[in-house]
Amino acid sequence: MSIVIIALNKDLSRWITAFNKVDENLDVSIWPETGDQSEITCAVVWGHPAGSLTAFPNLKLICSMGAGVDHVLKDPELPDGVPIVRIVDDGLSFSMSNYVVSAVMYHHRRFDKYLADKSAHVWDPSSPSEVAVKIGIMGFGVLGQEAGKKLKALGFEVVGYSNSRKNVKGIKCFAGNKELDAFLREINVLVCLLPATPDTKGMLNSKLFTKMNKGTFLINAARGQHQVTNDIIDAIDNGTLSGAFLDVFENEPLQKNHPVWDHPKVFITPHIASITNPDAAAPQIVANYKAMLAGLPLKNKIDRDRGY
Amino acid sequence: MSIVIIALNKDLSRWITAFNKVDENLDVSIWPETGDQSEITCAVVWGHPAGSLTAFPNLKLICSMGAGVDHVLKDPELPDGVPIVRIVDDGLSFSMSNYVVSAVMYHHRRFDKYLADKSAHVWDPSSPSEVAVKIGIMGFGVLGQEAGKKLKALGFEVVGYSNSRKNVKGIKCFAGNKELDAFLREINVLVCLLPATPDTKGMLNSKLFTKMNKGTFLINAARGQHQVTNDIIDAIDNGTLSGAFLDVFENEPLQKNHPVWDHPKVFITPHIASITNPDAAAPQIVANYKAMLAGLPLKNKIDRDRGY
Repeated sequence: MSIVIIALNKDLSRWITAFNKVDENLDVSIWPETGDQSEITCAVVWGHPAGSLTAFPNLKLICSMGAGVDHVLKDPELPDGVPIVRIVDDGLSFSMSNYVVSAVMYHHRRFDKYLADKSAHVWDPSSPSEVAVKIGIMGFGVLGQEAGKKLKALGFEVVGYSNSRKNVKGIKCFAGNKELDAFLREINVLVCLLPATPDTKGMLNSKLFTKMNKGTFLINAARGQHQVTNDIIDAIDNGTLSGAFLDVFENEPLQKNHPVWDHPKVFITPHIASITNPDAAAPQIVANYKAMLAGLPLKNKIDRDRGY
Repeated sequence: MSIVIIALNKDLSRWITAFNKVDENLDVSIWPETGDQSEITCAVVWGHPAGSLTAFPNLKLICSMGAGVDHVLKDPELPDGVPIVRIVDDGLSFSMSNYVVSAVMYHHRRFDKYLADKSAHVWDPSSPSEVAVKIGIMGFGVLGQEAGKKLKALGFEVVGYSNSRKNVKGIKCFAGNKELDAFLREINVLVCLLPATPDTKGMLNSKLFTKMNKGTFLINAARGQHQVTNDIIDAIDNGTLSGAFLDVFENEPLQKNHPVWDHPKVFITPHIASITNPDAAAPQIVANYKAMLAGLPLKNKIDRDRGY
């Protein structure tokens, strides 16, 4: 009975420390140094190499090291029937919702203008200092609702959109493909917090942008696969979008010569909107691992068909 | 019985429209075209020239066109005994508190780093993406409390400081000179929303900064007279402050050759944190004008001795 962590390009020392803090008797190895592969019953993964899980004949649980599971589900050799769980972390919610707030504020309070004015030594108190915003959050689960509540607390109008209808006090919720156009017509700031599934791939594209109010501002804090970055640039350049605040890209790290680096109306962050804290995640993983061993129900289990 | 507006460098057309909307029978003139000066009973002012109010022998009310009254009280020839009122406006509260939120977010989410990285085409996901903040709001009246509540709603720790002690649920409140040092020791972001009085002039200076935790971030959305800008620059350059977000300066417009324009750790806005909306202010002024004529109590009257 042991756990393997499979995560490339991640500093795992904090994770090992966090696991030891929860239970120092756990047998945790780091791939590819796994010992007897038939002993492994639980894989803790972040971007594991496709096919790597097939090496473990007795695998009973797959734990994503973050809130997303798209990196798990995209493995074409993912073992059938093994339950997959994800992390739900207040800290993650704190960070993601505040990232969204910071991006809305960047637009609402015209940081791009004041940064440009500063560079040019221009003092201009007479131009409007605020952009009136009505914010639509696309992907209205735990993280989206937290962002929505915070934006409401700041006095902004907020609406939500998700696949299945949500009930959130004081926030109008749209649901399903049929209501997408109506949702887009209500807003001038679009926040993408969608789960990454085959259905949402490339959704932030020219076709969607032309349905929106002219000059809508786009924030993507979800996944790069949701967006067609070249369409975003075109939409900004032709005035359909007023700008974008992007944490994610189709290819990361972003290529050195990509046109968004020097685009004055695109703010970029390097996929840091929200990073899982090992101290919050390890207890959840261990609790699910022990539940699996005891045959008890798992928490935050994902539905493979829905993809989240 | 008539009203005079004395405001230089302000576009007054929206104010006249707003007054007409409240009561089209009001007799409102714009200084210096005042007609019979003995008819003027109410002066609506923003930065009036010193001594200009002495021309009105029957003045019964002075209304500030904004939340601050420092511009009124600094007139050495201010007529004695005439009550002074100010504007309390939800929109003003919305804007000021959201300005403070945007400035905190700029620091908390390291916008300066990500802007510099963007310029240099650097993708760096491994540096910390957040600065842990504990925010102290100095000047904890209507606007300060609104900012404090919003920052709490975002999940931040907030404490308040004011001259007289306030009671705000969930926020520790410090009061008076004796508690200033203890207040400063608790925080690493200092937000100045102080009223401008002779007591608070130049308060944001080297002496204060050395009492704070090393690397505190400074936000000033109150008045330029509170700060010694050269001391702020020195404190940033020697590491006492980690940076500053400033809406105001001792001299405005900021001089073309001032060193803060090109300082990478100072963000500047041109005194636009919060601008009075005439549609919100005019009804308050007219209500106080009519109360004065009827001998009824005035709203939002200021205490000349306290200065706010």
